[in-house]
Amino acid sequence: MASRKLEKYEMILEAALKVIAENGFHGSQISKIAKEAGVADGTIYLYFKNKEDILISLFQERLGSLVALFNESVKDTNTADEALRKVCEIHFNELEQNVNLAYVTQIELRQSSLELRVAIGLVVKPYIQLIEHILEQGVEQQLYRKDLDIKLTRLLIFGALDEVVTSWLISGRKYSLSAQVDKTVEFFLKGLK
Amino acid sequence: MASRKLEKYEMILEAALKVIAENGFHGSQISKIAKEAGVADGTIYLYFKNKEDILISLFQERLGSLVALFNESVKDTNTADEALRKVCEIHFNELEQNVNLAYVTQIELRQSSLELRVAIGLVVKPYIQLIEHILEQGVEQQLYRKDLDIKLTRLLIFGALDEVVTSWLISGRKYSLSAQVDKTVEFFLKGLK
Repeated sequence: MASRKLEKYEMILEAALKVIAENGFHGSQISKIAKEAGVADGTIYLYFKNKEDILISLFQERLGSLVALFNESVKDTNTADEALRKVCEIHFNELEQNVNLAYVTQIELRQSSLELRVAIGLVVKPYIQLIEHILEQGVEQQLYRKDLDIKLTRLLIFGALDEVVTSWLISGRKYSLSAQVDKTVEFFLKGLK
Repeated sequence: MASRKLEKYEMILEAALKVIAENGFHGSQISKIAKEAGVADGTIYLYFKNKEDILISLFQERLGSLVALFNESVKDTNTADEALRKVCEIHFNELEQNVNLAYVTQIELRQSSLELRVAIGLVVKPYIQLIEHILEQGVEQQLYRKDLDIKLTRLLIFGALDEVVTSWLISGRKYSLSAQVDKTVEFFLKGLK
């Protein structure tokens, strides 16, 4: 995409994130998103097929960036323990700093149709695979027990992280999410050894 | 409620569970539920205000029974370790044996409005509190480390269990859920000590 086009595409996604976080997916008409982005309604259709397409693109771009960030950070770690801590830090820090994204991923995402959820599941998959890879690395490094059920454990870890974020949001963000990293990682690391 | 009335109330809830599991909450018109229950549309309104009310009642009755089952089973255990294993066993066994309930709790529940989710959250709360109580008992019994963050850890455990059930459903129930109990409990117990 040429840079002018890319800029508009980005502006629409950023506007959609804000509008969906404030009004819910069902209450976010294309016209509202266009108004927030400062473009004509028709312009949206130059970039996206429909509202579902905006939501999927939003996940691809924003969660895609998060997964890239995870992958980058994990590269700089030496052990699986450090990698797992990095993952937890980024997961909690990024969503704490980007409440709109947190709201859309934890609440709106879950309200979408099964079809949409399958599409979004594909975006989340590389993250689950990264956790799997870290667990494999940990077994290889003889840090984690060799009978660890990796396919099951990656779900236990992902589900645990996910629930902490959702609960923090629903409870009105009354405490710091990033302050939960140490105790969360401690629980995981003991569980893995 | 008189027993005839109670019977009809139960029949409508059972029909609603089946219809919602097959058609999704949004695709489950009152008329479909009435047909499945073998009653007139108007009869539904003698028992429920609207479709939302049916969904909330369904959760109160079915999840309520599950929580009662959890509480009963935990009474027969001597240690927090045994209680946690019981919770995990019941969670996985009951949802494996009642796929409609699993589908409605894991998929349809998440698609409902924030208002509905708050109501449903109240039904789930006693379950989260039971996990909290087991963790407290474990610390008292000196089985779990005394610096355990109980409020955080109950979320880690609930989220982990929840994710395993959702993933099992979405992947098309290709494996046994109850076969995951041992490895799941092992991860938790190591994490707690």
